[in-house]
Amino acid sequence: MTGVLYGVGLGPGAPDLITLRAARLIAAAEVVAYPTLAGAASFARAIAADLIGADVQEITMDVPMSVERAPAQAAYDTGAAEIAAALDRGCDVVCLCEGDPFFYGSFMYIFARLSERYRIEVVPGVSSVTACAARAGLPLTARNERLTVLPGPLPEDELRTRIDGAESVVIMKVGRHLAKIRHVIAGLGLTASAVYVERATLPEEVVLPLADAPETAPYFSMILLTKGADPWL
Amino acid sequence: MTGVLYGVGLGPGAPDLITLRAARLIAAAEVVAYPTLAGAASFARAIAADLIGADVQEITMDVPMSVERAPAQAAYDTGAAEIAAALDRGCDVVCLCEGDPFFYGSFMYIFARLSERYRIEVVPGVSSVTACAARAGLPLTARNERLTVLPGPLPEDELRTRIDGAESVVIMKVGRHLAKIRHVIAGLGLTASAVYVERATLPEEVVLPLADAPETAPYFSMILLTKGADPWL
Repeated sequence: MTGVLYGVGLGPGAPDLITLRAARLIAAAEVVAYPTLAGAASFARAIAADLIGADVQEITMDVPMSVERAPAQAAYDTGAAEIAAALDRGCDVVCLCEGDPFFYGSFMYIFARLSERYRIEVVPGVSSVTACAARAGLPLTARNERLTVLPGPLPEDELRTRIDGAESVVIMKVGRHLAKIRHVIAGLGLTASAVYVERATLPEEVVLPLADAPETAPYFSMILLTKGADPWL
Repeated sequence: MTGVLYGVGLGPGAPDLITLRAARLIAAAEVVAYPTLAGAASFARAIAADLIGADVQEITMDVPMSVERAPAQAAYDTGAAEIAAALDRGCDVVCLCEGDPFFYGSFMYIFARLSERYRIEVVPGVSSVTACAARAGLPLTARNERLTVLPGPLPEDELRTRIDGAESVVIMKVGRHLAKIRHVIAGLGLTASAVYVERATLPEEVVLPLADAPETAPYFSMILLTKGADPWL
């Protein structure tokens, strides 16, 4: 019997925003897998640390920082092969993923490599989108409102086109694109309704009007553009 | 000392997709509040049922089924007043909400009425969007892809304009708008890449290609339009 691969969303960062199902799977795991970025400590592992047993096999996938995709693909190839070896000897594997596995999650890279050969169950997690809205006290969408999610690395012209005329907008992965995004939002006259959120739900969380945001942003930062709730909805 | 109001997301329906934080708050609650729809049993309460103690005060907000907004607003006015009374006598109140409180969640109506007078903490929950993607085995967004979330009640022309040229699209609240949405998707030649999901993560869940979907859909149904993961990402 081959094992089952679980792709487990861990939520935005606070360990108690893990779901009951994910916590149970992690606590029972014999093998866990997770990515690390360029040799740094794994954020996914840190979120789940209190749940991981002492004698657990840990498969780390070290993803190099590079614009080229081939080195990252090679890292996921190697990780997928190690996960497959554990599944083949009958062990279940719990693959840890910040946020939600299928929403900009690293687990998609493993899913793409193994979904035709193994049984995979994806456990959804709390997305950073709603976590940032919660921490900012800003309702995202009510009734028939639309939501647009845009990654910050998109070209300036495309960001402008997509934001202009949209209702609620969430811009993910702000990081080194902060200056460009600020410029677009200012050009559209929307700075006053933009909120910057960094490392939502973690102790070092930052929530600020975009006008007061720092000059540099980490990868795990987001900008929310929403008019908030109509007082009487 | 007035109490704290917690707006707690419960996730898409499976009780073990509640977060550890939400579970702890519900289990410790002296007062819980939740909406019911036109006198029917509360879906939110059903998700959390195993966590609610026997001697807990339950504040129900019965929201009438009506296109007019005034009757629903009156129900939330009454509910907010009952919640405020509990907070004023020093009790914390846990307001239960399907999915995420700030993503089409009923808690926004309470937040709008009480956020200036009371301390409120919003606990984000797993959204039905990523739960449906997980159950359908369909990655939503990778790398620099965009996601568009559209409510099904939008007019046909607007749905068509917003879907055409978008990348991943999620259509929420399908319900009685299914025929209209099908017509729009067929007209754009996208039926083959559309998946229908009903009551994701519940025992009665349905996941089907849109072409095979039933003729009538419940409110808690969704259509996903996504090309899925590139095999090598």
